[in-house]
Amino acid sequence: MELLPRDQIAFQRMLDVIRRNYERFGFLPVETPVFELTDVLLTKTGGETERQVYFVQSTGALEQGGTPELALRFDLTVPLARYVAEHEHDLAFPFRRYQMQRVYRGERAQRGRFREFYQCDIDVIGKDTLSVRYDAEMPAVIHAVFSELGIGPFTVHLNNRKLLRGFFEGLGIAEGEQQMLVLREVDKIDKRGAEAVRATLVGDGFSLADAVADKILAFVQVRSTSHADALARLAALGQGSEMLAQGIAELRDVLELLKAYGVPEKNYALNFSIARGLDYYTGTVYETILDDYPQIGSICSGGRYENLASSYTKSKLPGVGISIGATRLFWQLREAGILSTADSSVEVLVGLMDEARLGDSLEIAGLLRAGGIHTEVQLEAKKIAKQFQYADRAGIRFMVLYGEAEAERGVVTVKDLRRQEQFEVPRGELVAALKVELEQQRALQGR
Amino acid sequence: MELLPRDQIAFQRMLDVIRRNYERFGFLPVETPVFELTDVLLTKTGGETERQVYFVQSTGALEQGGTPELALRFDLTVPLARYVAEHEHDLAFPFRRYQMQRVYRGERAQRGRFREFYQCDIDVIGKDTLSVRYDAEMPAVIHAVFSELGIGPFTVHLNNRKLLRGFFEGLGIAEGEQQMLVLREVDKIDKRGAEAVRATLVGDGFSLADAVADKILAFVQVRSTSHADALARLAALGQGSEMLAQGIAELRDVLELLKAYGVPEKNYALNFSIARGLDYYTGTVYETILDDYPQIGSICSGGRYENLASSYTKSKLPGVGISIGATRLFWQLREAGILSTADSSVEVLVGLMDEARLGDSLEIAGLLRAGGIHTEVQLEAKKIAKQFQYADRAGIRFMVLYGEAEAERGVVTVKDLRRQEQFEVPRGELVAALKVELEQQRALQGR
Repeated sequence: MELLPRDQIAFQRMLDVIRRNYERFGFLPVETPVFELTDVLLTKTGGETERQVYFVQSTGALEQGGTPELALRFDLTVPLARYVAEHEHDLAFPFRRYQMQRVYRGERAQRGRFREFYQCDIDVIGKDTLSVRYDAEMPAVIHAVFSELGIGPFTVHLNNRKLLRGFFEGLGIAEGEQQMLVLREVDKIDKRGAEAVRATLVGDGFSLADAVADKILAFVQVRSTSHADALARLAALGQGSEMLAQGIAELRDVLELLKAYGVPEKNYALNFSIARGLDYYTGTVYETILDDYPQIGSICSGGRYENLASSYTKSKLPGVGISIGATRLFWQLREAGILSTADSSVEVLVGLMDEARLGDSLEIAGLLRAGGIHTEVQLEAKKIAKQFQYADRAGIRFMVLYGEAEAERGVVTVKDLRRQEQFEVPRGELVAALKVELEQQRALQGR
Repeated sequence: MELLPRDQIAFQRMLDVIRRNYERFGFLPVETPVFELTDVLLTKTGGETERQVYFVQSTGALEQGGTPELALRFDLTVPLARYVAEHEHDLAFPFRRYQMQRVYRGERAQRGRFREFYQCDIDVIGKDTLSVRYDAEMPAVIHAVFSELGIGPFTVHLNNRKLLRGFFEGLGIAEGEQQMLVLREVDKIDKRGAEAVRATLVGDGFSLADAVADKILAFVQVRSTSHADALARLAALGQGSEMLAQGIAELRDVLELLKAYGVPEKNYALNFSIARGLDYYTGTVYETILDDYPQIGSICSGGRYENLASSYTKSKLPGVGISIGATRLFWQLREAGILSTADSSVEVLVGLMDEARLGDSLEIAGLLRAGGIHTEVQLEAKKIAKQFQYADRAGIRFMVLYGEAEAERGVVTVKDLRRQEQFEVPRGELVAALKVELEQQRALQGR
């Protein structure tokens, strides 16, 4: 995805909102190199991921042949694991980091599929233990980010892998491997539909009894409709295995803290169908759905895992995290017409009507910039109509003019291209006046 | 370079200052993919660059063998040329873009040399023509960036390739190729010393007369000491070729506009030794030196070029730009002790003395975050001394406590870990009080 400047500005604003909210919640920035050692990168991963890795070689190494030592990261989780293991003794735990960088996957070029895309992750990593309370912080951050992005109503769907497992144990599906296979199948319910999944479950591979398959399908279609309903749904699961009880207790804790975090109940719901494809989640799992655009799928997902970095350290490092795939999200929002091209990041164009006034233009621009206003200067006198046209096309809201007439009266003419208005202000009050206008604009846009 | 969080925060602030100033001057953001087609990337480049390129292949391509189709960008200039040529009809000219991304070079691992590093570039690209006035904007931006970075006094050294060429023509070194060789030699004067360069110039390769070599060495040691001195130095060059006259006129225009831009004269100087290694500069050239740390070399360089994208389009696209190598700069400033580890980006830690107060902690944190304050919450009650220790080590300035005693009186205790002070504020006034403190801190730090 390569964007024209005004789309890049819109994308940049999205990244800024995400970063600002991550920082407000006290997450610390980390950036890691794009290269990881091939050995490190491929420790944990299965065949599918391996095929999608980009290997890197400098010219010399290319000539020598052999397996490349370096590869490009395909997510931010493996680099996080390597980073935490490597710097373990310099970090304070629970370690709260955010990371917003590009990752690379050797996808076939396809609409909406990108070989290079931004991931924006937060994780809290504990040493030995990490309270389930951190699991409640993730939806609170999701709520803050997507409220400020202003892309419409959304719901954080919650589930818990222990609850899922406990439920399956209660149905006699006790073996871990078998549970995992059923979970993977159930995970496809939105894509394949309930009937297709049911057919697979009673078919040769799984050979489940009809009644068991029915129970599974009823279970995974549970969605809570309010905070009280969510608690009632948990209570309705009744007694069961230790595993089920743990899952229920964790979800209840998360729900109660969500209330304390001030997350409105319309923004979260239990959804027992969510399992997340990745095998390493062990507790709470999250997906975030735009209520009016469910077809977009989850726009922010994650969960709790038992041990982040078992391949790189003997320390036990449980964690919980979420990820926003910003490039894909931006693309989807644009396709759906939810996001549009932004105004220019340039707020003011200082026009030039008379070559002799260039010095004044530069002085005015200097004052505007010192006031924090993004200002471009027309450095060559052109027809004034052309200058307006340029500002208008570029999406610059204000044009400032200072010609003979203005100089005589000590004023500046401001043309507001959005409101199609024009007004004069004393030269000395220009910066303050425009700051007020721009503040109002920001306030209106909720920024 | 991989940083621990507090160093990453310091680095991030540097990038933020650069970006903020680029935006204030009305530059538009562009990001390009890290991959370019190998053919595109290697169009213009000589052997040295080629050896430093990283080639990229997905697993499938690797198995098939052959020359990789993709390579990682080694600067932001080639991607800019490709971008402008590709999107020419969608861009408004003069096209003003900033780009802050990582670039990749297959350097041997070495102290202070990085295989992956940030470049922060701005360029103004004209169509057919671009006024020399834009050349004066570059030092104005450099001045804004490095003033705000606050890393000590600095000087933008200015020269002009036409002036250099005109001067050499006056000495009878008329042939372009020969001039370029002399220029390259002269460019090494800081590294090799005047005597070594002189020896080379009168030696077998160049065979210049002693008098000519002397004139060259005297010329390249010119440094102006003030604005008036700079103009006088230009005047002293006297009459000469058309080329020399053009160079003088351009430098004079730039100097005069610098004054109009409000750049203090202590921050710029003529330096006739500057040629810049790259062959494509054709007019003004810049280097920026920290006055107290000249050994660091140029921290921001660039210049004017005749045609950006001749390999990719028939349009003539003259431009002028500068580049800050932020990764190397950050590393050098840290090595020199000019930059130190930053405070945490977390401004407040809400402590927890009593499990029953967790709800209050989360509510207080919510208010702080709504006020734009970066806030972390202690989610598990630990010994209060441990919580202080954590905040102190993490570089978090404020700790907020709300226990039984505070609840009874409707106040919050604030501990300022930097000033080693403690005070109480009514709970309802906490956000406003901390905002004032943090504003003061930002003002003191010039942010």
